[in-house]
Amino acid sequence: MTSTTTSPVTPGSGRPSTALLTDKYELTMIQAALADGTADRPCVFEVFARRLPAGRRYGVVGGTGRLLERLADFRFDDEEIDALADSLDERTADWLRAFRFTGDVDGYPEGELFFPGSPVLSIRGGFAECVVLETLVLSVLNHDSAIASAAARMNWAADGRPIIEMGSRRTHEEAAVAAARVAYLTGFDATSNVEATRRHGVPSAGTSAHSFTLLHTGPDGPDEAAAFRSQVRALGVGTTLLVDTYDITAGVETAIEVAGPELGGVRIDSGDLGVLARQVRDQLDSLGAYNTRIVVSGDLDEYAIAALRAEPVDVYGVGTKLVTGSGAPTAGMVYKLVEVDGIPVAKRSAHKESLPGAKRAIRLHRRTGTAVEEVLLPFSAEAPEENGLEKRELVIPLIRGGEIVSGLPTLEESRAHHSSVMVSLPWEGLALSEGDPAIPVRVVPPEALPGA
Amino acid sequence: MTSTTTSPVTPGSGRPSTALLTDKYELTMIQAALADGTADRPCVFEVFARRLPAGRRYGVVGGTGRLLERLADFRFDDEEIDALADSLDERTADWLRAFRFTGDVDGYPEGELFFPGSPVLSIRGGFAECVVLETLVLSVLNHDSAIASAAARMNWAADGRPIIEMGSRRTHEEAAVAAARVAYLTGFDATSNVEATRRHGVPSAGTSAHSFTLLHTGPDGPDEAAAFRSQVRALGVGTTLLVDTYDITAGVETAIEVAGPELGGVRIDSGDLGVLARQVRDQLDSLGAYNTRIVVSGDLDEYAIAALRAEPVDVYGVGTKLVTGSGAPTAGMVYKLVEVDGIPVAKRSAHKESLPGAKRAIRLHRRTGTAVEEVLLPFSAEAPEENGLEKRELVIPLIRGGEIVSGLPTLEESRAHHSSVMVSLPWEGLALSEGDPAIPVRVVPPEALPGA
Repeated sequence: MTSTTTSPVTPGSGRPSTALLTDKYELTMIQAALADGTADRPCVFEVFARRLPAGRRYGVVGGTGRLLERLADFRFDDEEIDALADSLDERTADWLRAFRFTGDVDGYPEGELFFPGSPVLSIRGGFAECVVLETLVLSVLNHDSAIASAAARMNWAADGRPIIEMGSRRTHEEAAVAAARVAYLTGFDATSNVEATRRHGVPSAGTSAHSFTLLHTGPDGPDEAAAFRSQVRALGVGTTLLVDTYDITAGVETAIEVAGPELGGVRIDSGDLGVLARQVRDQLDSLGAYNTRIVVSGDLDEYAIAALRAEPVDVYGVGTKLVTGSGAPTAGMVYKLVEVDGIPVAKRSAHKESLPGAKRAIRLHRRTGTAVEEVLLPFSAEAPEENGLEKRELVIPLIRGGEIVSGLPTLEESRAHHSSVMVSLPWEGLALSEGDPAIPVRVVPPEALPGA
Repeated sequence: MTSTTTSPVTPGSGRPSTALLTDKYELTMIQAALADGTADRPCVFEVFARRLPAGRRYGVVGGTGRLLERLADFRFDDEEIDALADSLDERTADWLRAFRFTGDVDGYPEGELFFPGSPVLSIRGGFAECVVLETLVLSVLNHDSAIASAAARMNWAADGRPIIEMGSRRTHEEAAVAAARVAYLTGFDATSNVEATRRHGVPSAGTSAHSFTLLHTGPDGPDEAAAFRSQVRALGVGTTLLVDTYDITAGVETAIEVAGPELGGVRIDSGDLGVLARQVRDQLDSLGAYNTRIVVSGDLDEYAIAALRAEPVDVYGVGTKLVTGSGAPTAGMVYKLVEVDGIPVAKRSAHKESLPGAKRAIRLHRRTGTAVEEVLLPFSAEAPEENGLEKRELVIPLIRGGEIVSGLPTLEESRAHHSSVMVSLPWEGLALSEGDPAIPVRVVPPEALPGA
């Protein structure tokens, strides 16, 4: 969860340092910059995505809260310095040992939408203290935002029906925890991942796998009823029984025989889920189990979820496609130097241009709440008046003088914020089909502002 | 690196516990199994992929060594038990507190190839002690094998030219370390990730980013030469200068002016890399910099690498596509109960069949070394004679009675093993184009064996 108390970004948490989760070139650049006297030049770096993944109409910022926690553990202790001893000179080692981020960070609050060029995070400080954070910042935001962006589409497709995140086994074990966190951020109801519950307070869910049914096999063959009886005895009649280990119709019959019509739910994890959901609903109703919920799982993505909208499905379980970003496993964000000593700078090579100068962003909304445009302004400029449109500031302060700002949104607050911004999108921007970004992004150059 | 000393799988390393990197249903199943007396039934679980990702012809086992390290930290201390207190009964909490894996694990050595159905890992022990490891086992193997499988194709495409892994910023910060490790396993030369060097001994690489060139901007504009001078002074003339911040031709000229014709390398990170590599090679040669290497990077995947084979490229830098598995971010491995108390078991639902019974695997090779077939046998069966073909056992013991077997392959040894198995594939199995698995997998049922 996002920290709500003021705390130094660096050091002393007792947790393992995150400082080596870093590309080597950051350290070699610092070495060169220390030697040539440029290490402390005031700089602004900006994190943004040049484009959205193919066909996507919006992205969702995920990971900001988690990033602040990881930055709080970014320090070079003796262990880290020793590991780097071969590749760095003494001066650089000393600088790293004394490192403590002293600058400012601003960014979009977690759960906010982003579009091509949106300045999702701005980092201001000396060159060296900013560049050293590059990899960690990008790793967290690229991963978490990719998952959040896919999750938001799944939530939209589910149209109010609950989704349980169950993808831990399909991704790196630590990425799984982060994925569960941002799935919850975008509206998922629960996760199977126990660590996500401990670490981030995400509600947990989980009952049983096919192996539990298969475990109840004896010399006389399978005994599905024994498995169901055991589960109901241990977890109560409100549990969800997995009915597709052998024959689904027989499984449902056995489930209700064992648990009675007050059984909480049945889960179907294979086959044509739409057809099966209808059959199982009819069967459950015919057995008087009108309130027994149907949980479906098995390689669901946003399209499969949407295709099941007309079927009697009560809960979706989503795994692989969630944790792999449903075809877009990384958000494509970059960390670019945009200003040095007040001078706007930018790379000029082909297809990798960035917009020079530190920026902030506002979103324009109609009185009805519908978003119509995102506007990027020079960081310190007043937003120009926009006829009849409401202006909403998108960037909030996250770190000031190296201290995490107090009162930042909690995960629950970010979840509520995400929900509110999703309803502000024009309806065509929410479609799952391929298309342009849901709203255009307009860049206001300094010379276009009043008084320029 | 893979542990080479005998050590208990559970507890007491001093490192944080990995036990909550687990799906909740494993714990609820244990609760039910403890209550009904089935928790200690002897079981065999098997890890395998039902199919390869679309179009892929082989998979590479990655993560086994890392998994054994993570299993060594799998224990339920007070902290973990407290976190679970709300959802588990006293008996289950006691069982978890006392948990220590006592069973056996066998598997394919890291770097080995796998095909649909290959029993990549077998876990034998009581039901509860085996099922509790399910999520962690799958998370590590699915992630690391997905990256290893993509990396192997990239190495093949590079045809002997070195590749540097630089994808940390595009994936979860911990997944990045694991990705760098398996990229090295499959033949990559180095990584940008500093933690992968510390933790796994992967050689490191990295010089500078565009921000370093942009940093050298003053009131009079950009000063690329100053940036290059600074880098050469700090890192020596063998360094690699990034020449595409402004104009590549001017950048190359400046680089050789500053560093002289003994400059180690130049890097191009944007544009049409093939065309640019030829132009830059000509320019370098005309400046007498015959030995200055050309490093190319920028969204390279195995196809782009192969397309550059005819160009004067000396080193590839690969990021995004490596860490996201180049279109296949997870290996699709599952963890299935295949035997209970000596009785073969299997789920029977549509499209998710598994082969009942514990298995091991051999690969048949021609005398020339070319692999022709993989054969799955009942775990304890003798392999039948195969006319004129050499048999190679694929499965090695990893854990015995809860202790990690001593003398397991190190990462360097696994890297050499991988290299040797790649050359055993029939040449058409190595193609990047879509196709069937490189070799067929044949299942020998118990009744087909001599003496059955």
